[in-house]
Amino acid sequence: MTFEVTSEFVEKLSKLIELRKDSAIKKLFEDVHYADIAEVLDEVDFDEAIYIIKLLDSEKTSEILTELDEDTRLRILDNLSAKEIAEEISEMDTDDAADIIGELSAERQRNVINALEDIEHAADIKELLSYKDNTAGALMAKELVKVYETWTVAGCLRRIRGQAKEVSRVHSIYVVDKKERLVGRLSLKDLIVAKNDQKIADIYISSVDAVNVNEDDEEVAKIMSKYDLEAIPVVDDNNVLLGRITIDDIVDVLKEEADRDYQLAAGLTQDVDSDDSILDLTKARLPWLILALFGGFISVSILGGFGDAMSKFPELFFFTPLIAAMAGNVGVQSSAIIVQGLANDSLRGSLFKRLLKETILSLFNGLILSVLLMSAGMLILGFNFNVGLTVAISLISVIILASLIGTFVPIILDKKNIDPALATGPFITTSNDILGILIYFLIAKLILGF
Amino acid sequence: MTFEVTSEFVEKLSKLIELRKDSAIKKLFEDVHYADIAEVLDEVDFDEAIYIIKLLDSEKTSEILTELDEDTRLRILDNLSAKEIAEEISEMDTDDAADIIGELSAERQRNVINALEDIEHAADIKELLSYKDNTAGALMAKELVKVYETWTVAGCLRRIRGQAKEVSRVHSIYVVDKKERLVGRLSLKDLIVAKNDQKIADIYISSVDAVNVNEDDEEVAKIMSKYDLEAIPVVDDNNVLLGRITIDDIVDVLKEEADRDYQLAAGLTQDVDSDDSILDLTKARLPWLILALFGGFISVSILGGFGDAMSKFPELFFFTPLIAAMAGNVGVQSSAIIVQGLANDSLRGSLFKRLLKETILSLFNGLILSVLLMSAGMLILGFNFNVGLTVAISLISVIILASLIGTFVPIILDKKNIDPALATGPFITTSNDILGILIYFLIAKLILGF
Repeated sequence: MTFEVTSEFVEKLSKLIELRKDSAIKKLFEDVHYADIAEVLDEVDFDEAIYIIKLLDSEKTSEILTELDEDTRLRILDNLSAKEIAEEISEMDTDDAADIIGELSAERQRNVINALEDIEHAADIKELLSYKDNTAGALMAKELVKVYETWTVAGCLRRIRGQAKEVSRVHSIYVVDKKERLVGRLSLKDLIVAKNDQKIADIYISSVDAVNVNEDDEEVAKIMSKYDLEAIPVVDDNNVLLGRITIDDIVDVLKEEADRDYQLAAGLTQDVDSDDSILDLTKARLPWLILALFGGFISVSILGGFGDAMSKFPELFFFTPLIAAMAGNVGVQSSAIIVQGLANDSLRGSLFKRLLKETILSLFNGLILSVLLMSAGMLILGFNFNVGLTVAISLISVIILASLIGTFVPIILDKKNIDPALATGPFITTSNDILGILIYFLIAKLILGF
Repeated sequence: MTFEVTSEFVEKLSKLIELRKDSAIKKLFEDVHYADIAEVLDEVDFDEAIYIIKLLDSEKTSEILTELDEDTRLRILDNLSAKEIAEEISEMDTDDAADIIGELSAERQRNVINALEDIEHAADIKELLSYKDNTAGALMAKELVKVYETWTVAGCLRRIRGQAKEVSRVHSIYVVDKKERLVGRLSLKDLIVAKNDQKIADIYISSVDAVNVNEDDEEVAKIMSKYDLEAIPVVDDNNVLLGRITIDDIVDVLKEEADRDYQLAAGLTQDVDSDDSILDLTKARLPWLILALFGGFISVSILGGFGDAMSKFPELFFFTPLIAAMAGNVGVQSSAIIVQGLANDSLRGSLFKRLLKETILSLFNGLILSVLLMSAGMLILGFNFNVGLTVAISLISVIILASLIGTFVPIILDKKNIDPALATGPFITTSNDILGILIYFLIAKLILGF
């Protein structure tokens, strides 16, 4: 359980590889979980990783490959022949197999599939590869336990013993009619509790949740977590049973979704981790920074436009970063609440009510902050009353505007079927910076009259 | 599957409640999933929700209660007697029961537990309530299927039929010795495939992952998703089997963790959704805004300190929001990558290497952005070369510093066992704003010599 990749372990392993002590290496990994071996492979030199993959049994290495980081896996697969990859693939469930083959070039894909000995397995993988990314079809596995409604319990148990060997986890047994259409489900428990001569048709549960093969994977995740399902069958438009999705796949979908939202909020355009190359990291980071720079430029121009006020009211210019920062922070808070509400389907009530509530809320927060600001500004920094008042009124106005923008931009994006998470982070801070500064100086002009 | 809470449905329901058509209401909900009924209860008036809860069978309402939003649930439970709550609780699995009782006041907790008829169930719930929040013990359920290693397969199947009725999902059958210590596991499949007269001791799998009852729940989630487990047994320090955690509980833990990180990054101190009261929303939002205001104040003072430069170089002050915004954005990007790396345990390599990489990366990004800035500033806005150079050099320096702060603050917090997600969002933007502005003016002073 508590295996840790220590530097002693890695050193020992390196030495064994250097000395080509194959049996000792095998023994070293004997009781180590494949997920842990995958971590070891991330730590050792690349040549050593290849050596280990070629040395261990494909039963073990196929599992290791599915656990590896995509980059590392691709580099390793580049060093294997199509036949060697096919051997690994033949040990995998169809969903993992399709995911990994899908990462290869079109030509390699064909070669690997042609090298597979089990024709049925190959056909299943080809079918899975044909579904669009991020659909139920791309997520499902072909492995499932299926019985016909006309079978008896005894016959069922006999055949399940055969089918179940290929299915690592039996969540539900799916019942189909003679046209392969899904009609119901059974649990192993139901089968064990039933009498041997009963017909499946008499004992199955006919209410069975299923998703269409073209359903969006995030929607499938929502359905499965809402209804607490551990597996869900996937059907085509004619209700023919095609595959099943299990909850561990959904855990991955949920994680990816959460990671992506988090990254968008932080201004990263693609999934990167800190070990990626500087080029990849730049690709993820630079677009948003250029957007922010462009936005910054607009604020420079706005400030330049009000430059004449500088000689009379220099303090005004000291407050611009404060106003901009508050606008940005308020905007991010509001948009984050909405983005999460949209993700959890928990937004209710009319737009008008929301507008009213957000306005009252930000008025309330704005008042507290303005009082703090005015008293501190006048008492500590000794600004004159009019400047203090200008900053305070601007702060309230900016907070209200920023929270309204933060609230409604994601709602509008969502209505237009654009990922609302795009509206968080740099996008909202940049636009709120600009608007905040503009409003601030307009109010200042009104009150101070420069 | 695709039940939608329509306004027609809610209207029809309201009318039926008004007319006290109890059997029609029951019929209306007959085929509706409890998770959907929970959504309906969120939509209708509160009195109507109470009416529905009191009307439907406790078998159904107990499930509905577990699905409700905590606020709504508490309000409903406030309207039920201890005995009525006990009836609901008696239909629930121990983990859900303990979660819901745990939300009540200490006195209500005692009353409800005393009102439970099933003494064993009550004792189980009391045990679960005794574990600390966010531990494996607080997450687990007492329901599981357990067999002794001395039993035969046939005896096992017979007894499992009894135990399994109480356990909604049988993931694994846990094998214990006569001192109740966990020694291994079995799947239902293994049992079905085995011969009737075989001993459990001969067929069980002795390698079984387990977690200690005091283990942190996020750690349990990591273990279960790393090793692709659908259930994990929980043991005490003597390896005595206490309960089990299933993957659907882990889905909730992962979701909560992701939500909390996201909220911290957005500057929200507690879990709020947009339907919460203005007071709750203020409590979540105001602390970070006050922090940002305080930070803004520091930047006002810094700018004030360099106020003398204003007459000679007014343009400098136009660029402060731009510099501050870039510092904030870069800081958030860097910290988000680290926070995610820490959450996924994927940070590898030495701190020095990371420092070097982050510096090169930000130097590279900074150069591109500075060239863009200088050319735009001089060509479009017509600034003089020295001011352009000052802004450009400052931008590069600020980007490097901001990315280093964004990288190392979360790492340091994590080493000190503080949630690194605290370092994202307003905290990093505010401190980077201040440092960015300070550095900018120091460099300006050096180059322009005011």
